Parts: sequence; C-alpha cells; structure tokens
Amino acid sequence: MDELQRKIEDHIKALSQFTATPDEGTTRLTYSKEDLQARAYIKEVMKSYGLVVREDGFGNIFGKLEGELEGPSVLIGSHFDSVPHGGDYDGPAGVIAGLEVAGLFFEKNIKPEYPLEVIALIEEEGSRFGGGLMGSRGMTGKLSEEDFARLKDKGGITTVEAMKAIGLNPALSKQRDPQSIKAFLELHIEQGPILEEKEIKIGIVESIVGLTQLEVTVEGKAGHAGTTPMDARSDALIAAAEAITQLPKLAIVEGSGTVITVGQLNVFPNGSNVIPNKVVFTIDIRSTVEDKMINVMEKAKEIILSANKTGVKTSIEQQLYMEPKYLNEEVRSILKEESTDLGIQHTSIHSGAGHDAMVFADVTAAGMIFIPSKDGLSHCPEEWSDAKDIATAVRILFETAKKLTGAKVSHG
Amino acid sequence: MDELQRKIEDHIKALSQFTATPDEGTTRLTYSKEDLQARAYIKEVMKSYGLVVREDGFGNIFGKLEGELEGPSVLIGSHFDSVPHGGDYDGPAGVIAGLEVAGLFFEKNIKPEYPLEVIALIEEEGSRFGGGLMGSRGMTGKLSEEDFARLKDKGGITTVEAMKAIGLNPALSKQRDPQSIKAFLELHIEQGPILEEKEIKIGIVESIVGLTQLEVTVEGKAGHAGTTPMDARSDALIAAAEAITQLPKLAIVEGSGTVITVGQLNVFPNGSNVIPNKVVFTIDIRSTVEDKMINVMEKAKEIILSANKTGVKTSIEQQLYMEPKYLNEEVRSILKEESTDLGIQHTSIHSGAGHDAMVFADVTAAGMIFIPSKDGLSHCPEEWSDAKDIATAVRILFETAKKLTGAKVSHG
Repeated sequence: MDELQRKIEDHIKALSQFTATPDEGTTRLTYSKEDLQARAYIKEVMKSYGLVVREDGFGNIFGKLEGELEGPSVLIGSHFDSVPHGGDYDGPAGVIAGLEVAGLFFEKNIKPEYPLEVIALIEEEGSRFGGGLMGSRGMTGKLSEEDFARLKDKGGITTVEAMKAIGLNPALSKQRDPQSIKAFLELHIEQGPILEEKEIKIGIVESIVGLTQLEVTVEGKAGHAGTTPMDARSDALIAAAEAITQLPKLAIVEGSGTVITVGQLNVFPNGSNVIPNKVVFTIDIRSTVEDKMINVMEKAKEIILSANKTGVKTSIEQQLYMEPKYLNEEVRSILKEESTDLGIQHTSIHSGAGHDAMVFADVTAAGMIFIPSKDGLSHCPEEWSDAKDIATAVRILFETAKKLTGAKVSHG
Repeated sequence: MDELQRKIEDHIKALSQFTATPDEGTTRLTYSKEDLQARAYIKEVMKSYGLVVREDGFGNIFGKLEGELEGPSVLIGSHFDSVPHGGDYDGPAGVIAGLEVAGLFFEKNIKPEYPLEVIALIEEEGSRFGGGLMGSRGMTGKLSEEDFARLKDKGGITTVEAMKAIGLNPALSKQRDPQSIKAFLELHIEQGPILEEKEIKIGIVESIVGLTQLEVTVEGKAGHAGTTPMDARSDALIAAAEAITQLPKLAIVEGSGTVITVGQLNVFPNGSNVIPNKVVFTIDIRSTVEDKMINVMEKAKEIILSANKTGVKTSIEQQLYMEPKYLNEEVRSILKEESTDLGIQHTSIHSGAGHDAMVFADVTAAGMIFIPSKDGLSHCPEEWSDAKDIATAVRILFETAKKLTGAKVSHG
C-alpha cells in the first residue's frame, strides 16, 4: 500500500469516529457535536498542508492555497454531513480527496497561478434541515439568507440557533461571487453498481439526475382509539398511507430511471391508542429527464391534494428543485485526458444521485469523478469504497487541478 | 362551588403541571421525571388523609386506611400516566376521586371494617413500554415478573432500569394475592360523547370492550433514493402503507362498534433520501364481541404476513389481549342504589376504552363510574371534564365504599 492510500485510509477512519450512532453507521447531522468534531479534524489537516482556513456564514469550510495571481479559485471538495445511520464514504471521500490533492501541492511545493481551495460543505443530505445541497446552494446564492434562517430541524431548532450552539458565526459572509470561482471539482462514491459491474475504477460524470423534494403534511383529528367509531374518524395516517401507496407506480410509468421515494415519515402524537392527528412525510423524485420529473411531481401533488376529500387537510411544501445537469465539457475532457495520460481506465457515467457539483454547474465549470461502491450500496453502514480507488482519483484530480490552476508542470 | 369540587380542581391543576410538554397537553410517561413529580404529589395527599403509603415492585402506589378487621381491602383509584400530548383527566380524575373518597373517610373520621386502599396505577396507556394496563396486569399476576423485566422503551431502556433511574425499587413485592382484594372501584372520564348527548352526569359501566394490540415490524433493504431503480427496491414503508390501508375496512365489515387503529409508526432510518429499511407500527383492535375482535385480528395478521411476498420480511408480536368484560353485578347495583339515594340521575353505559377495572374484574368484584367528556374528546390537550361531575361521582363512590368496607353509617 502506498503512502497516499494509507493517508486516505487514516482520514476515512478518523472521520468515521465522529458519529452519533457508534457501531450503527455514520450519523453526522449538520451543526451537531459530530459536525464540530469532523470540522476540527478537517481544519487541522488543511492547516498541516499549509492552507489558510476560513468558514463562511453557513459553516462551509475553505482551505486556501494562494495563487500567484489574484484570480478566481479552483474549488475541490465535497460535503461532510451524513444521512442517519449512513456510511463512511458518502461525502468524506470527496473532502479527503480535496485535502490530499492539496497535500500533493504542499508535498511537491507547487505554487499555482490561480488559488486552489479545498472545500468541505455542510448539509448536502438535508438530513437535519431538509432540502439538501444546502452548503452549495447557500454559497452560490440559490438559497437566500432569509430562507436559510427560516429552516428548522425536527426539534424546532433553527439553522442559526444550531450554528451558534457549536460556536459557528452565522454573521460571516454567505454568498460568494461566482467571479471568484474558476472551477469546481468533486470526487464522490458512485452509490450504484455500474463501475463495479464494468470493473472500471474511474467514472467521469457526464450528467446528474434532476431532483425535487416535497414535504407533505396531513392533518386529521386525534381521538381515542377505542371510543371513536370508524365512520367518525379523520385519521391522518390512513390518509397518508393511502396516498403513499399510489406513489411508486407514478415513477414506474414514467420509466427512464425515474424514481420516487418516501424516506422520512413522522406520526403525531404517535401513541398506540390515539388516532393520529398529523403525519409529515417527504417525497423525493428524481429523473434524468426533466419532463418526467415534473410529470411525477404534478401527479404526486394531485394524489396528495385529493386526500382532502377524506376529511383530512393536506398541504405540500417544495423543499428543493434541481433540473438535470450536464457537467462542463472542457473539465470532463481534461479529466479524461489526465486519466489516459496516467494510464488509468475510465468511463463516462451518469449520476442518479444529486451532488453539490450540480449546484456549482450553474455558476462555474464543474467536473466530477466517481469511484466504485461495493455492491452498489450507499446510505447504510455497509457502504464501502476502496481507498486505493480514492488514491487513483486523487492522482487524476491533482493533475487536473494543476492544469486548471495553471500550476507549473511538476516533475516530483 | 363547594369545598369538594374546589379540592378536585386543585388536584387536577396540580397534576397537570407534571408534563413533559407544557402548553401542549399532558405527556407523563411511566417512570419519567413527571411520573416522579406526580407520584410525590399523590403520596403527599394520601399522607395528609391519614393513609399509610407504600409502593409495590411495579411502582403502583397504595394509600391504606386500616379496617377494624384484618380482611381484604376495597381498592379505589385509577392510573396516573398519560399518552403523549394527552389531557389532564384520563387517569388522574380517577386517582383524585379515590383520594377524595379517602378524604371523606378522614374528614368524617370513619373507621371501616375492611381496609380501604386508594390506588394509583402505572402504565395503563402503554405509551412507554407498550401493551398497556401494566400496573393492574402486573399486580394481578397477568404479567409475569420476567415479561415485565424484558420490556423496553423506544430508547432501549428496560422497565427495571427506568424504575431505578427515578429511585423506585423493582425488588419490592409485585403480585398481590387476590384474596387480599375485596373489590375494585374506578372513576374514569367517558372519552366518548354518550353522557354529554344524554345530558346525564353519571354512567354506571356495565361492560368494557375487548382489546388486543399487535406490534408489527416490516423489514426491507435500505438504499439510496436516487440510485436504486424502482424494481430493485425492498421499501419497508411502501409495504407497511399498503398493509395499513387495508386495515380499516376489516373493522367496518365486522360492525358492532369494532374498531382498528394504527396509532404509532416509526420509520428507520427516516432520512428523506434513504429507502426505509424498517418500519415498526402498532395495531389496536377493539370490540364488544370477542369473535369480531378475533376475526379482525386474524385478518389483519393475514394482510401483514402476505406483505412478505413483496420482498420484505414482516413479523407480528401480540402485546396485549383482553377479552370483553362485564363488571360485577352486585357492585353495579350498589352504585345505582347509592346514586338513586343521593338523587343523582344515572345510566348504564358500555366502555369503548380499556380500563384497569377490566383486569381487576377477573380477580375481584369490579365496578366503574363514568363522567361526561366535553365533546367526547380524549387523548388530546382539549380533553376536559367538569370537576363538579367528579365531585358527584365521589359522593356516590364514598357511599359505595362505605357499604363495601362495612363502615358504620355516617351522619356527617
């Protein structure tokens, strides 16, 4: 095992310790104690690689290597939050890749023309405040300061309160001038089975699925489970269940890999002998074809609203809408060239998951590399990727970052 | 307002303070901080009325007025736990009635032949450990010490750990010899609309609904909401929703007031972009006709088990089974006589809710009084009954308790 791979394994292991559910996967919610621990670790590594560290008003972390010019930066990184009981690689692998690209610049003492910034983003998963892609949407101006401040977690704690609770400063600057960004590079695990099946270690991402997320609230009337006749009930859970069962076929009918998921559902008051008076659930819809995504969304809304007929009250809030994205052609070409030059086999690939790169794609030249996910699994404790593949991707990203930052050709 | 009614109102108000959800109803889970606070209050009142206080190995509270004979006791009381976000009356009204009956014995210095014991029971609702009627089932030997010790709350805390955490002693004696119980009296709010509609303040309960509770676990496979095709999913929530939507009609078809409720449902891991790998929910089934209850239960089990076909794994645990119960005819007669003698209009009534009295009915002469519930509401913050009606019931229960304990006729 080479030194780079060993360092990557150490980082993965270190970050995996910062979980709210030890032995049951990584649970690192944004602005949690575990966020603070991971944040401290990432900042420490950035400093050890000679980067100047700062955080913005969302808590995104930046580690900057100044360039010879006062020009826009090449950003490289990913997110460091997780879903509940998720894995050790979704997010961290990309942050670590960014760190180790900077590590190679440091080790080889390379001074770029344009600055290189390693970036660790918050709340990509949306597991605490909903919606997702929050760090990237925030800094690119797609999530306003007001909308950000209005978001609350399930316990009613606002983003701003949660930031302050771990010592972050929400008053720091938030939106970043797109003119200050030259490109965005991200490594991510595939979270699907394609690379493994093809036995290819590197996927150059061509396009990213469009995705939208709705939050549905169904309100009925609480009542005693024993004394309220069946015909006098306004049961929020029965209404929610009836709507939910109709959703999968909407995606199946559209085809082309369109998917729909109800991943989060909470019942109130959630007592075994009380008729539920409220159910809140999420609907996540994705497609590579925007029209299909919109079709499914509109039909899902119709189903939800038609539940109003059954004596309950339903409402829908759209938490996220991202159209399908093609990544920058020039950056894709460079990634492919550098892979070929390094003698690394690669393939073009489509992303079925949303990524921060799709947000950056609107404001800068964004590129993305996938590495294989064991058994295609993700968002579960079994999620695993090979540090050797991360190291391979780091070498490609290092060459690409040198080219994009205009660094002198290295002979190290 | 008379003195008795004022005292009752004070007690209701005092106990309502002991809630984990201030301004959002009473949430007093068994062995919680709020349980400990209510417990201290109840024991204090018992002592002030000259009762000898003890707790058993479940944490049930007894306040005893010794009789002239060493005979069995007349028990009077109810439970003091609540559902999440419940009301101030379901349970406490009956405990308070017991206390104030003892208060009248004390005030009038009445010495009974047989002991009178005011009783405050734990976990009738089953909101923390499931199943319900736990205090009465435990002390009457229907819940074994082993089964009790095996029960855990949602956080994995066992009954015994939870008891110790608030300073209770699970090593104290648990089961009580039925020979030591002469009768059981309970006042409860109706939790339905009948008394209010009839404009009658007192219901003498004739029968109590049979009830059973199942806990269903549906296990599927977690996966990323974006990268797992619709036809490769084992979505535990979709399977659960499909089963749940089929349940209401089972009860509707049986008729005769048969009801079925899914009140509690928890999704795991409960992330908006993760396919649920596990759903756990309760099914509560009630009927006055045991065959109908059994029919619904069997059909519900079939529906749950048939979900196995869809690639998920389902399992069912029966947490409670209580057949419908008729209350003691002699005690009912005494309650009616005393009501008539006091000039109080009353009616026979059936209970659609389960009560501790149905557990005691198997081992002793059990009797029960209902008072009206405003708008028939219960298990919600809006739950309300008139302290004046509680006072009226206390007068009937006082006369009945005197008769059952063989107390000298009072002229107070």
